[in-house]
Amino acid sequence: MSRSNVLAVDAMGGDEAPAMVIAGLEIAAVRQPLAKFLIYGDETVIGPLVAKTKRLKAQSVLYHATETITGDMKPTIALRLRDSSMRRAIDAVLAGEAAGVISAGNTGALLALSKIVLKTLKGIDRPAMAAIGPSAKGDVVMLDLGLNVVYDARNLVEFALMGEIFAKVVLGLPAPSFGLLNIGSEEGKGDETLRSAAATLRDSPIGKQFYGFVEGHDIAAGTVDVVVTDGFTGNVALKTGEGALKLVGELLKKVFTSGPLARVGYVLARGGLQRLKEWLDPRRYNGAVLLGLNGVVVKSHGGTDAEGFAHAVDVALDMITHDFNQMIIEGLAALDQAILAPEVGSVSNV
Amino acid sequence: MSRSNVLAVDAMGGDEAPAMVIAGLEIAAVRQPLAKFLIYGDETVIGPLVAKTKRLKAQSVLYHATETITGDMKPTIALRLRDSSMRRAIDAVLAGEAAGVISAGNTGALLALSKIVLKTLKGIDRPAMAAIGPSAKGDVVMLDLGLNVVYDARNLVEFALMGEIFAKVVLGLPAPSFGLLNIGSEEGKGDETLRSAAATLRDSPIGKQFYGFVEGHDIAAGTVDVVVTDGFTGNVALKTGEGALKLVGELLKKVFTSGPLARVGYVLARGGLQRLKEWLDPRRYNGAVLLGLNGVVVKSHGGTDAEGFAHAVDVALDMITHDFNQMIIEGLAALDQAILAPEVGSVSNV
Repeated sequence: MSRSNVLAVDAMGGDEAPAMVIAGLEIAAVRQPLAKFLIYGDETVIGPLVAKTKRLKAQSVLYHATETITGDMKPTIALRLRDSSMRRAIDAVLAGEAAGVISAGNTGALLALSKIVLKTLKGIDRPAMAAIGPSAKGDVVMLDLGLNVVYDARNLVEFALMGEIFAKVVLGLPAPSFGLLNIGSEEGKGDETLRSAAATLRDSPIGKQFYGFVEGHDIAAGTVDVVVTDGFTGNVALKTGEGALKLVGELLKKVFTSGPLARVGYVLARGGLQRLKEWLDPRRYNGAVLLGLNGVVVKSHGGTDAEGFAHAVDVALDMITHDFNQMIIEGLAALDQAILAPEVGSVSNV
Repeated sequence: MSRSNVLAVDAMGGDEAPAMVIAGLEIAAVRQPLAKFLIYGDETVIGPLVAKTKRLKAQSVLYHATETITGDMKPTIALRLRDSSMRRAIDAVLAGEAAGVISAGNTGALLALSKIVLKTLKGIDRPAMAAIGPSAKGDVVMLDLGLNVVYDARNLVEFALMGEIFAKVVLGLPAPSFGLLNIGSEEGKGDETLRSAAATLRDSPIGKQFYGFVEGHDIAAGTVDVVVTDGFTGNVALKTGEGALKLVGELLKKVFTSGPLARVGYVLARGGLQRLKEWLDPRRYNGAVLLGLNGVVVKSHGGTDAEGFAHAVDVALDMITHDFNQMIIEGLAALDQAILAPEVGSVSNV
């Protein structure tokens, strides 16, 4: 089995696991007939579910795992379970049996386990979490979303590089534009860390795609394809934007159920409203990705359904088939060569 | 003229100034018959405008200012203009002729000028900018919105105190709840600065109103009445939320103009949609407030109209009539007494 199309799956994570996970894998298997899935979990439950599938059963291998990491389990406890479905799936990546892992389970445990087991990719100082969201001009990638509360300019540069390659692979953009999130677009705005990162990025091999500083409203406006920020700001921005969209959704629902006329109004505009709802549907954007580890790690939302899980599987398979990590390594090498260029030829630099 | 109802007005700031400013003051004058306005600007233009008003002319005094700070002027240049309408209005507060100042002009210049002229309120380390926005449970105050990229735990505590009093005065809440914006609600989340501020607030005289840590989605959900954060995070969150609302607004407009059926649908649901639009209308939330200076300073959005400007005037007058700054001074004294309580009786503390 070639490693380049194999995804390890934690079947026990998620509110409706394992039924939701298996149903999601079946959808993904139909869409990606060349993909192979190594499924970890309680085989007495999963076995019959997989047996009932049309496509998945031929594209998967089932491995029995005796333990399950629950949603409220502390990462320190989760780390001790050697035979959990999540751990076994991550171990499969370490062993080279799969190129990536996906779980809809405990986020903290997945982060802790994958960092400890898989370790950081050579040349990357800190991994980052990325996700995709909607904007007026198409999908937007944002990172970091919460891993790095402490960070420096080099971390931001690495996040930018990883985000740019992620947008290439998952959004299919040939030369994604990216910006650093700040409180103003002028060069002097923000702190020294931001200004230093901006200076490095401007002179980097992807400098032509660097838009400069962007502000909060630029995220939904789609000013750039990739919004780069630290984990604290990114986490707050992501949740603030989601919260605002949710508020409008709830208010619109109230409007259209407020009386018989409004109900008829909804029916008449239903086509467009449904398309809008589908376009903003969180399931379409399911799958936060942990970038910068030795292996592809995708976290599906725990509350998603089979369709949402299948979307996260697509993201993982996109990264695997494009050999995402090899692209990162090459991008880093080019970056460091550009930064070190003035020193080329000096003995100390050999 | 008693100082407790006098507002100094920069009539020359804003995209449609001075006509928009004078029209807004007329609306405010009708609503607040006891308020007095000191209007600064080019009297050859403003004089005729004020003369045409029904109520404002009796509630205002006009002062000629020979210079105008333009929207693109750098604060360092703006500071040198001694006879600008903005400077003169701020000087009126320093001279005790007005209790507050309002401008729809250059934000950077207003911040720089009011900080330099009015100076920080005794006991407050750094001023903060606050604004009001919509949530599922009513209006929400958020601060700081961009003044403080560098800050410490004490600053956050002071922001919380000022925000709590602002919500009392402007939203009329007897005991506003407040939370510290973080990337998780658990006690251990965030950095040392956030955890230290939380510990101080828990033991403070307003500790019962302290909800703890809140996340980005809590802003629009209305989990607390006041969201406290640093200037970088607050600025990004505010603009991200505004951007998301704007995106949905534009998409809805497209839906309802996409065809004849959708247009009829809009007409049928128009009542509710209009109310929703009005409720989310940025003009309703116009007026960012600079808290912690010797005098009330309100910044109206430059692109607002007369109705929006009048709303910002209401905010300024609310703060003036409630003697907002005296409430801050008393709140600070109570806070410091509570924090210093273990030392009470020591000689060094007299």
